[in-house]
Parts: sequence; structure tokens; C-alpha cells
Amino acid sequence: MTDDGHGARAGVRAGIVATGSELLTGRITDRNGPWVAERLGELGVEVSHLLLVGDRGEDMAAALRFLASDGVDLVVTTGGLGPTADDLTAEVVATATGRPLELDEHMEKVVGDIIAKFADRLRWDADALAAANRKQAMVPHGATPISPAGTAPGLAVPPHPERGGPTILVLPGPPRELGAMWEDALATEPVREVLARTSPYTETHLRLFGVPESEIAATLRDVGERTDLAPLEITTCLRDFALEVDLRHAPGSGKAAAARDAVVEEIDRRHGRAVFSRTGQTIDELLFDLLDGQVIATAESCTGGLLAGRLTAPAGASAHVAGGVVSYSNDAKADLLGVPRELIEAHGAVSPQVAEAMADGALARFGATVAVAVTGVAGPGGGTDAKPVGYVCFCVRTADGRTIARDPVLPGSRGDIRERSVVLAMHLVRRVLTGE
Amino acid sequence: MTDDGHGARAGVRAGIVATGSELLTGRITDRNGPWVAERLGELGVEVSHLLLVGDRGEDMAAALRFLASDGVDLVVTTGGLGPTADDLTAEVVATATGRPLELDEHMEKVVGDIIAKFADRLRWDADALAAANRKQAMVPHGATPISPAGTAPGLAVPPHPERGGPTILVLPGPPRELGAMWEDALATEPVREVLARTSPYTETHLRLFGVPESEIAATLRDVGERTDLAPLEITTCLRDFALEVDLRHAPGSGKAAAARDAVVEEIDRRHGRAVFSRTGQTIDELLFDLLDGQVIATAESCTGGLLAGRLTAPAGASAHVAGGVVSYSNDAKADLLGVPRELIEAHGAVSPQVAEAMADGALARFGATVAVAVTGVAGPGGGTDAKPVGYVCFCVRTADGRTIARDPVLPGSRGDIRERSVVLAMHLVRRVLTGE
Repeated sequence: MTDDGHGARAGVRAGIVATGSELLTGRITDRNGPWVAERLGELGVEVSHLLLVGDRGEDMAAALRFLASDGVDLVVTTGGLGPTADDLTAEVVATATGRPLELDEHMEKVVGDIIAKFADRLRWDADALAAANRKQAMVPHGATPISPAGTAPGLAVPPHPERGGPTILVLPGPPRELGAMWEDALATEPVREVLARTSPYTETHLRLFGVPESEIAATLRDVGERTDLAPLEITTCLRDFALEVDLRHAPGSGKAAAARDAVVEEIDRRHGRAVFSRTGQTIDELLFDLLDGQVIATAESCTGGLLAGRLTAPAGASAHVAGGVVSYSNDAKADLLGVPRELIEAHGAVSPQVAEAMADGALARFGATVAVAVTGVAGPGGGTDAKPVGYVCFCVRTADGRTIARDPVLPGSRGDIRERSVVLAMHLVRRVLTGE
Repeated sequence: MTDDGHGARAGVRAGIVATGSELLTGRITDRNGPWVAERLGELGVEVSHLLLVGDRGEDMAAALRFLASDGVDLVVTTGGLGPTADDLTAEVVATATGRPLELDEHMEKVVGDIIAKFADRLRWDADALAAANRKQAMVPHGATPISPAGTAPGLAVPPHPERGGPTILVLPGPPRELGAMWEDALATEPVREVLARTSPYTETHLRLFGVPESEIAATLRDVGERTDLAPLEITTCLRDFALEVDLRHAPGSGKAAAARDAVVEEIDRRHGRAVFSRTGQTIDELLFDLLDGQVIATAESCTGGLLAGRLTAPAGASAHVAGGVVSYSNDAKADLLGVPRELIEAHGAVSPQVAEAMADGALARFGATVAVAVTGVAGPGGGTDAKPVGYVCFCVRTADGRTIARDPVLPGSRGDIRERSVVLAMHLVRRVLTGE
């Protein structure tokens, strides 16, 4: 992670508060905070703190006080907007911004109509329903309600009328509702006022595969010795075994653009072959496009179906995925993929020869135009000196005879080795299809 | 989420600070915070706040001040312990606790030996190495260093000698290092002093499948009308499509034990068939045990290999997983699983009849003792009135002829439907094998 942070304090800063006691047990991982952070980043807003707090009014209030004292311009809260007693966000935000709660009659009707549909499921009686309805239609004085995607309205609350402080955007906890309400939330007057003070960054997204982060760090250090990189914010981050290098800067800065060009040029010069995307496209998206007009089949041993699972994840995958065989046992390799038993005996189930035969079998059995085979030692047991844990054999072959084969030793745990094998296999398919 | 929180403030409270600017871009999801939270929960420590902050000294210091003012007894920090300039945690913690940094000569040698091994990879010269070495061996006065699992030592730092405040446990960011150092960290004097003031909760873990959260909520409300549930902390949470009901209370309370018994009894009475675990065991762990001595094969369409991928996730899965076929196309269903083409034409690829034929095919082709077949409309396209998006047909069949078949309409997105189908399939296998 490289983040020079120069000048970053000048822009609009935000804090995020995700509420929900379940987030503090460690059982549930908060998805809203990272999602909101990524959206805010795209808008040119810098997130300085992300807080997870339980469903306790005093903890939420403390979090809001902390962010106000830290001087953020915007706070986004998620969760705690439901109809029950432990849903406290609106009340806490009303108190924090000195804006008494008032019944919003339009919202009362909107919420009433929605709750009526859920009434049977909630098994509430009429009084409880009316109370829940009223509770969810209470809006801090001067705030803008945001129509619900589920049952709970959101709120865009301007700063405290005397003390000032951050604008607070209050959104529900279910990720689907949060996502559905986001655009409406950005369009509210209080949020628009904050966003008017920012300008989206100019961004460049490079994606590299097969280069260690340390090499990119060395490249960046070398460029930095010749060129002033201060006006540029450089983030390198390893995600899904690919190295993401993101460069961003305030729009219109000639110095920043020159610094960006110097970095991109040097990365291209040293690591050009490893750059697989310049648009931020993921390997999944790239491969989906490349497979247009192809028919792909998989033959998996150590990855156990994860590669096929990933190829079939996008909607529309059935247009190019025929299927696959998970040949976990030797019998399955022979019976379902036609791998000769003597080949397995001669070279072992984990061998370049067997990977090749698996790819041939998948091509033939599925009538595919391209097949990808993976067989390896995922561990933790089963390793030998010659074929240690992490030794994985790949073969990608097209019906017209193009082949790429690899047999690296991959690092990490059993899960890492399986996941990394899936990603490596996808990149090998990409290379066969692009001829790179 | 139900969390009555009664009396919870009495025990030892902790805050967690995860550092790393990459956590605030939304690109990387923090795994350390939830992991530490779960570990602390097991020790009877209540986590009140989890903060993610960037690699900026002032932001980290603000987070520590906030937690100190909130009165927590323990702060656990993760990350920011590396050798480079943006690794600031030790310095910030030293300032916050009023404990000047001092060189620990023993740790200097430990770190030096480790760094020497990495020197080539890091491409540093001798001076940079010595500086990094010294930096990582600096320990706040009176703190206990924790030997590194990677390159960075941890620190257990007692409260500020005059002002008091929390004990701070400083751990590295890489999850593997964090996990490897956890037991040593708990054994340090400053952490032991904090933990001596707590006692692990008495916990009961129920796991249910196929009951909506709202029904459990209604059951809990009804029990609460007859029995005082105040001494009990009840958490219900949906994870991996199973409902987790966790009951915990301070040890030795008769009232709490009676409340717990009342809750368990009523859940058993109303939802007993849905309870699949009373030990906290996951469906994966349960199924792994149940499959001992069996040979399982999968036949997947809409789940695209995810079910096989999950069955092969645990080490040792090869003892009972033969393999599977991902028959995404109709040809694959016919050619690789022997599903009669006329059956597909008559009933459609998504039909109970085809699911049954897929299971039969998997049993035969893999010589399995139990086979599980899944075919469905994952969407977002492809739905009809008769077979809408989410309609999924399951068939589990054993070689000796026991069968369970289901064809529900599952809610959610394409991804949800696929994941939910995997979990439902695993539960159906469990039911066939246990005869429930």
C-alpha cells in the first residue's frame, strides 16, 4: 500500500458509521462500509474513518461526536432504521444535529402502504403497525427524507443549525436497499451541497498479473527519484491475486498528469506484459468478452469446481460455457475425461501430461472450442519432494491446437492455492484467446 | 439482530482499530477486525467499537483518543507495523500511552535475523536494512514485545502510567501473522491483567435451516412474555442462509440458565426439525463427518460447480468426493450424465425429472454411494411464468435407492440463488444421510 496523501486534507472528507451489534461479534462482515467508501471515492470524497458500532444509542452518539470533532464534512450511517426499539439511528442523528423529530405526513403514508404489505409476515397487530409506521416517518426538522427501497426511509440531515458540523446521510442496513437508494440520496439538497465542494478525481486504473507488489514498489521508487509524484495519489493493492495500481489526482493539474504519464510509461516499460487491463476491468469481465463466440469446458481436480463456478457466475455465461468435469478421483479422470490410466500411473495424477490429457478430454467430451485443465496438490497433505503442496499443473488448449501449459508451485494455504489456481487458469485462457 | 444488552457494560470492554488506507477505499475488506472481535467475544470481552483508519498518524491518534474517552479497557490495533515510513502504529501508541520508544536489543537481533532473510527480496542496501531493523525493534517503555510471525513484532502496552486508560495490544496487519501471534499476545502480562477481570460467557449455539428469522423473533417474543430473558444475551443472525441463534450469559447465574433453558425448549418445540446443530458446527463440518465412508458425486447446472467446489474445500475431501459434472448445456447433460434427450425435451432442462436423471447419471458414472443434482433458473433472464427465476430442482439419491427431491422458488439475485442452492443441496444430502 502506497498512499502519499499529499494535499488530501484539502478536499471533502467523510466518515462512515455502520451500525449493528452483529458486526461486532465478528460473525457478520460489514459490506456497507466498503461499498459506501468506494462510491464516495469515485465522487472525489476522501473517507477518513469507518466505524462499526453496536445498536446502542450512546455508542452511536459517541461515534458521531468523534467524527464531528475530527472535522469531517459528511457522515454516512448505515443500519438502525427499522421499526423496532433497537433501531435508534434517526433519534440519535436528530439529537446530534439539534433537529427535533417531526412527523412527515407524506412519508407516513408511503411507509404505511409498504408496511401494510408486510403486515402478515410481521404478525403485528394494528396498533403495533401504526406505531412502527409513525416511528419510521419521523424526520429531523429541516432534513430531507429519502423514499424507502425496502421498508425504511433514509434521511439527508443538514448540519446543526448553530454549531455546524457534518451533514449526515442516514441509510438502511440491508445492502440491496442501500444500493437502490444511493442515487436518490445523492440528489437530496443537503448531500448535493456537500458534493458541490468536491470534484471527482482523474483516475487511471492499471491491472497486472504475475508481478509481485515489491517490484512495482521498486519501480515507483525509481520513478519518484526522477519525477515529483507528490501531486499524484498512488494506490497499489493486491486483490484477487492481481495487482491493482490506481493513480488519481485533482482534475486539471498539468504537473499531476505529467507525473501520471511518467508512472504509466515506466510500468509499461518494465512490466508491460503483465498489464492485462487499463480500464479497471476485472479478469472475469475481460474473459467474458473474449469468450464471445467460443465454447469453453473445464476439467478440474484440485480446484474442485471453483473454476467452472466462477466462469458461470456472470449472467449470460450459458452462451459460452458448455460445462466441466470435476475429476477428483483417478477413476473420474479416466472414466469421464478419457485420461489413459497408464498415463496416470506413469506420471501421477498431478503432472503436465495428465493436465494435457484432461484438457483434451474436456475438448472432446463437451465439443468445446477451448478447454482448461487444472490438477494439483492443494494440501495440506499429499505433498512430496518432487511435487510439493502448491504444485499445480495447468493446460489450456483450443480445438485448433493452440496450447499453453504451466506447472508452478503456488504459495499459501489450501484455500489460497485453490483460489489462486482459478485466477491463474483464467489468465492462461485469456492468453490463449488473445495470443499474448 | 436481537441484542438486549442488559448488564453488558459491567464486563471488560474493548475497541479495535484496523489501520490501512486501502481499507478506506472500499477495495479491500478488513478481515482482521471481525476475526479479533470473534476471538475477544469467546474470551468474554465485549467489543464496543471497530474503527478502520488510514495510515495517517493523526487519524490513528484520534481513534485511540476516542476509545480512551469511551472508557474501553483494551484496544487491539492491527496493521502499520512494517519497516516503511507509513507504518506508524508503534510511534502513535507510544505517544498515546506516554511511554517513550526504546530500543529492545533482543528484539533488534530477532528482527535483524528475519529481515536478513528477506533482504534480497526487498532489494534494500545495508543502511536501509539496519534502519528498518532498528525501527521495528523500538518498544514503548514498559511494554512487552511479541515475537514476529512475519517480519514485524507486536506489542502489549500497559495503560498510561499517570492518566490510565486502556491497555493497547498492537498486532500486525497480515491475517496469517496476526493469527499466528494471537496466543503469544494473550500470554503477555499486560493482556493477562485485562483478561483476568473477565470470565468467558456460558454459550449455547443453535443452528437452524429453513426457518425465517421473523419466526424465531416471534418465538423469542413469546418466551419473553413468560420468562425474564434480561440476564441472557440473545443473538440471532443469518449466515450462509442458516439462522444462528446464540445464547450467552455470565457463568454461574441460575436465572440466566433458566432463561436459556426456556428459550431452547420453546425453539425445540416449535422449530425442532429445523435445528441441525447444537454445537455451532457448520453444515460443511457436519457433512464432512457424515460423508465418512461414503462416495459422493455432484451433477450441477445452475450452481455451475460451486457445490463441488464447496464439498472439496476441506482438507481430506478426496476421501469421499469422487467428483462431479457441471452440465451447463443440454448436450452435456445428455453426453456426460446420460440424461435422455427426450426427457429434457418433454419436461425442460429445469425440471424434477431431469434433476432425478442427473442424480442417477452421477451415481452411475462416478460409482458413487450418494449423488446430488441441481438444475435451476439462476436468472436474471430465462424465467417463465411456470418456471420463474429462482426455480431450482434438487434431487439427492443414494445407491441403495433413498431419494429426497425438492423444487422451491428461491429468492434473491443470481448470485444469491446460486449460493442458496448450494447450501440447500448440502442440507438435503445431510437429511438423506441422517434419515431425518
